[in-house]
Amino acid sequence: MTDAYPALTGHLADAGTDGYLLDADGDDSNQRYLSGMDSLGEFVALYADGEVRLLVPDLEAPRAEAESDADAVRRRSEFGFGDLVVERGPALAGPLATARFLADYGVESVSVPPNFPTGTADALRDEGIEVVADYDDAVTGVRAVKSPAEIEAVAAAQRANEDAMAAVEALLADAAVEDGVLRLGGDTVTSERVREVIEAELRDAGCELSECIVASGPEAAKAHAVGSGPIRAGEPVIVDVFPRDEASGYVGDMTRTFVKGDPDEKVREWYEVTREAYETALAAIEPGVTGEAVNDAVCDVFEAAGYPTLRTDEATDDGLYHPTGHGVGLDLHEEPKLSWGAGELEPGNVVTVEPGCYEQGVGGVRLEDVVVVTEDGYRNLNDYPRDLRVV
Amino acid sequence: MTDAYPALTGHLADAGTDGYLLDADGDDSNQRYLSGMDSLGEFVALYADGEVRLLVPDLEAPRAEAESDADAVRRRSEFGFGDLVVERGPALAGPLATARFLADYGVESVSVPPNFPTGTADALRDEGIEVVADYDDAVTGVRAVKSPAEIEAVAAAQRANEDAMAAVEALLADAAVEDGVLRLGGDTVTSERVREVIEAELRDAGCELSECIVASGPEAAKAHAVGSGPIRAGEPVIVDVFPRDEASGYVGDMTRTFVKGDPDEKVREWYEVTREAYETALAAIEPGVTGEAVNDAVCDVFEAAGYPTLRTDEATDDGLYHPTGHGVGLDLHEEPKLSWGAGELEPGNVVTVEPGCYEQGVGGVRLEDVVVVTEDGYRNLNDYPRDLRVV
Repeated sequence: MTDAYPALTGHLADAGTDGYLLDADGDDSNQRYLSGMDSLGEFVALYADGEVRLLVPDLEAPRAEAESDADAVRRRSEFGFGDLVVERGPALAGPLATARFLADYGVESVSVPPNFPTGTADALRDEGIEVVADYDDAVTGVRAVKSPAEIEAVAAAQRANEDAMAAVEALLADAAVEDGVLRLGGDTVTSERVREVIEAELRDAGCELSECIVASGPEAAKAHAVGSGPIRAGEPVIVDVFPRDEASGYVGDMTRTFVKGDPDEKVREWYEVTREAYETALAAIEPGVTGEAVNDAVCDVFEAAGYPTLRTDEATDDGLYHPTGHGVGLDLHEEPKLSWGAGELEPGNVVTVEPGCYEQGVGGVRLEDVVVVTEDGYRNLNDYPRDLRVV
Repeated sequence: MTDAYPALTGHLADAGTDGYLLDADGDDSNQRYLSGMDSLGEFVALYADGEVRLLVPDLEAPRAEAESDADAVRRRSEFGFGDLVVERGPALAGPLATARFLADYGVESVSVPPNFPTGTADALRDEGIEVVADYDDAVTGVRAVKSPAEIEAVAAAQRANEDAMAAVEALLADAAVEDGVLRLGGDTVTSERVREVIEAELRDAGCELSECIVASGPEAAKAHAVGSGPIRAGEPVIVDVFPRDEASGYVGDMTRTFVKGDPDEKVREWYEVTREAYETALAAIEPGVTGEAVNDAVCDVFEAAGYPTLRTDEATDDGLYHPTGHGVGLDLHEEPKLSWGAGELEPGNVVTVEPGCYEQGVGGVRLEDVVVVTEDGYRNLNDYPRDLRVV
């Protein structure tokens, strides 16, 4: 028997289930990973007996047969989907066809990821199938260890990221300062304008446009505020870009902080502690070290410098109020984490390292690269200066 | 007591549950609709006592408090999230904090949508909370009836759509034919090039770039094939564009079929039956008519002309192998459907009407508009010629 994913087969043996079941659309990264398909619609993927088998709407079947690398593509109509819609309604027809599909493979119990739809789980249970929520999300565990091709896909997205960052830096360097505000070519330089420059670079590089962060002033302190309005001299500008390569589906992630003109002493101190934390994290990363230990080392740096962290105040919005990093791959946020409770790193993990220092109402700074864990440490997938970029 | 969503309150009374619970990120349209928030991360929304209450990660809290129109924004740290991560692990900490959040509001039973995460549902059940899968997906039912502002948001997306379609038509009209292939400005006209023109128009109109369909030849017959390579004279080109207005989040959807030069008799016959089916669907649409009846009327037209439909052959890839239409709003595919088992239309429903005729290995045609159901019929949100666009 071939076994496409031995780690998943091992999970099934431990859980005592016959198969691993996904019910999602191709935007779900577990689904995309197992099926090799980026689909518009919802479909079912079953991993059992070492093989990936799909159950797809009939209108997706020609494309699935052409594009998927699954071992089998079955159509809903094989399992009486049309009659089930009439008899049981459209919401239950899919889960009931899935129950018949499982029966066809002799599968009586399945593990499912935490995000598996409750509607499907409960309908399968009503049909006598045991459904076990797998809180370890075993497929994400498989995905957390990247192949060389996956690592290169992330690295390619980072090349696009660096080009975008260089374009931002050139624009800020070219800008003049009038009444404290950046101006260029007769217009005020805003977050929106900087974002357009980034989007044009990413588009040219074959990346999907996702909203990126260009935030200065008080907005730089807010989690996930994308930033808006004029950029002022002396204020740090956080530029956080996370492009997805359209062809591969893999994502990059990188942050630099820029200042036009002279940053004040407080901003320099924020950056200094952030840079020290960044270096401390990298020095700690190697196989066998836990993501929690890396995060703890970063918190040590901030706390020693007198800044709050989520370890000293679970509700803080100031200091370092987010974890050190997260895996990237098909998802922007995936396993492993550099955070509380995170387990041991292993070769092939691809993670961000992104400490930052913030003060609500004032501003913030952040520095972020993506590294791959190697046999003896890490390899940084980024190549861009890491100091506070004073332009 | 104010009651933000009487239809949801009615659902809770019928189901005998205390609240309606969502656990998803802001990309989930139910979540976006109830919370008024388009968030990067996962959060919880509870509708109970006529109010919307959110439970968000602490790092999302500042933004949620600023942007959401919910009645309450609570932080995970209020419910001991950090300790739960340490004691029970990161996967269970969220659901267990959610159980405490529910208890804080005296909620002992919840309805959840079919796509609610099984991991959360099972963890809440272990905490003694009753979780009932709501296969009617009551929030999607609320969303299916659009306010005037929502209808205008879809109409705005359709204006962008028409501009994109006009740009495609101009490009195809300008092209010359060399050896049967379209050429313009020294280059071959490909699906990719046409897609670039569409994307530029949509970007200028403030729409997110989603992959659109520009498919000719055999690709035009494949469901969801986006199309690639040179466009040939005489072959129908299906152009199906579904832009999302960035500011509102609402989506448009429109398809036209173009032919450069002289289409053969078969293509003209495909288009003739498709156009007749389209007119038949529109004539049928009014409040009280079921989506199934509209779809049946469309199937009647195709079957009378000798083409297969999903009604005559559930597994067909030829003829009309997809339903007549679907709702559009925050989702590209939402309620109500014009399909088998679909219920009665009511004023405020916004649906596509998109019959098409296909032959695998050869090609296909499709015609699609979006209409809003009115008190006495429908209003078409599109204004673009509806004949086979021979350019």
